[in-house]
Amino acid sequence: MSITVVGTVAFDSIQTPFGKADRCIGGSATYFSVAASFFSQVELVAVVGEDFGDDDIAIFRGRNINLDGLQRVAGAKTFFWSGEYGFDLNVAKTRDTQLNVFAGFKPRLNESQRKSDVLFLANAEPTLQMDVLRQCERPRLVALDTMNLWIATAKDALTRILSEVDLVIINEAEVRQYTGEANLVQGAHHILGLGPKTLVIKRGEYGVLMVTGDAIFAAPAYPLETVFDPTGAGDTFAGGFLGYLGSRRDITDGEMRRAIIFGSVLASFTVEKFSLDRLREITLSEVQERYQDFRTLTHFDDFERA
Amino acid sequence: MSITVVGTVAFDSIQTPFGKADRCIGGSATYFSVAASFFSQVELVAVVGEDFGDDDIAIFRGRNINLDGLQRVAGAKTFFWSGEYGFDLNVAKTRDTQLNVFAGFKPRLNESQRKSDVLFLANAEPTLQMDVLRQCERPRLVALDTMNLWIATAKDALTRILSEVDLVIINEAEVRQYTGEANLVQGAHHILGLGPKTLVIKRGEYGVLMVTGDAIFAAPAYPLETVFDPTGAGDTFAGGFLGYLGSRRDITDGEMRRAIIFGSVLASFTVEKFSLDRLREITLSEVQERYQDFRTLTHFDDFERA
Repeated sequence: MSITVVGTVAFDSIQTPFGKADRCIGGSATYFSVAASFFSQVELVAVVGEDFGDDDIAIFRGRNINLDGLQRVAGAKTFFWSGEYGFDLNVAKTRDTQLNVFAGFKPRLNESQRKSDVLFLANAEPTLQMDVLRQCERPRLVALDTMNLWIATAKDALTRILSEVDLVIINEAEVRQYTGEANLVQGAHHILGLGPKTLVIKRGEYGVLMVTGDAIFAAPAYPLETVFDPTGAGDTFAGGFLGYLGSRRDITDGEMRRAIIFGSVLASFTVEKFSLDRLREITLSEVQERYQDFRTLTHFDDFERA
Repeated sequence: MSITVVGTVAFDSIQTPFGKADRCIGGSATYFSVAASFFSQVELVAVVGEDFGDDDIAIFRGRNINLDGLQRVAGAKTFFWSGEYGFDLNVAKTRDTQLNVFAGFKPRLNESQRKSDVLFLANAEPTLQMDVLRQCERPRLVALDTMNLWIATAKDALTRILSEVDLVIINEAEVRQYTGEANLVQGAHHILGLGPKTLVIKRGEYGVLMVTGDAIFAAPAYPLETVFDPTGAGDTFAGGFLGYLGSRRDITDGEMRRAIIFGSVLASFTVEKFSLDRLREITLSEVQERYQDFRTLTHFDDFERA
């Protein structure tokens, strides 16, 4: 079974209190693909410029990632983001965003991309997300990410696509911004009322809350002694989460919970180094080992009745 | 087995976005005692003024709370705190603090208070906490709470008492303030290096992290649709946590984890109404039922090996 992801492949320049990385590989679809490929075949749909060389593309090689959908435009430059973090690593300050080749990106999906089992619409303008969704032959699971910018500038279009997806992956602050609800659980039910069956709320270093019509699952983030760079943690989470789900025959509540943990495991690796430096070096058995650490981290027994 | 708590019994005036309560019952030892009394016998050590009437004292009646240590000083007024919360209920803004009778409080413990199994030193000036500790005949477990004020103004005295207690219950921001470490896990190990065997870090709506020398346990807060007033949540948590531990013969890692959940359960009730209005009406079976809800909230299975 395969997953199609439509998003950015980018260069990032990042400064954190622990160092900096200039023009390293980034982008939502990059983090997502590498993470998801631990579990599922990925169809990557993105665009890069001429400056994205073979050395850069190497990040995708030797993994279950099909690059037929990675368009390289001659004479154009790759999407570029520059940002910095203070000691509160939960908040990124954008210094510069250059859309470059992404500005004119009109993805046209080929047959295998259209027929994927799972579709991930990474953060992008909601009308672009809708255009991609229209091309697909109703995947088993459609998930969407978004950002504060689209809530502020394209709320109607965002609301339309929210009503057509199965699952929304969104930051805590964005739930409050979109709904105007201070209470997160009420905000979540507001969004579920629009159509999605599941809301996965990312809370940075505090972990994840998954809300459905009748249940909530809470997972902490893995407590790390070294967090170097939170860039890409959300997309890595989405990749691990959907990658795992894409490999399952049935998408039950129990599988969704396991998927949340695998997503959290992969995100915890991403932040240990800059860019994809940590993610690219880990093995599946390291991922599975940290899954066991999450069990130890969260486990408690029932109490004894008197 | 019994628990001695030394702290405040107070009147609070509270404003939240959901309403206000004038001159309602509050205080660290009040929330702590009522919560702990679900599991253990509590020896309450605190002082009130003449304005704290029999109707007010009724909050402690009919529970396992011994009031021999509740001193009532004629002609004096009870500790008073006034505060407000915005939509971010994690942050209280103090409008007024009047120490009143608490300013001259020099607790003298009687024999049963000195011989308690568990001692909780609620937030107070570290030298007062040390004076109480010196009076005790080495309890099985000594736990301490503190606040940003003492970190800023009495750090040396605080450091001395930190080195003599078994367990510290502290806010996330206070760990960072005390240690100067941005990374919470590193900050926790810094404090453990001073002597305590266990650090329980309160993270408000994000739950609790318990850190020991070789393990971490993460518990989420219970996701509530109605949070009216977070006042007292931390002391209620401490009461449920230590009250449960006080009722156990052995304090194992497994019991500590259960205790964290019981503390979280009780705190989740406290915030549902103003003051102790919710806490005073709940039953042990409602507490146990919500413990089960925490199991559902956090449970995930091991993954299947291929």
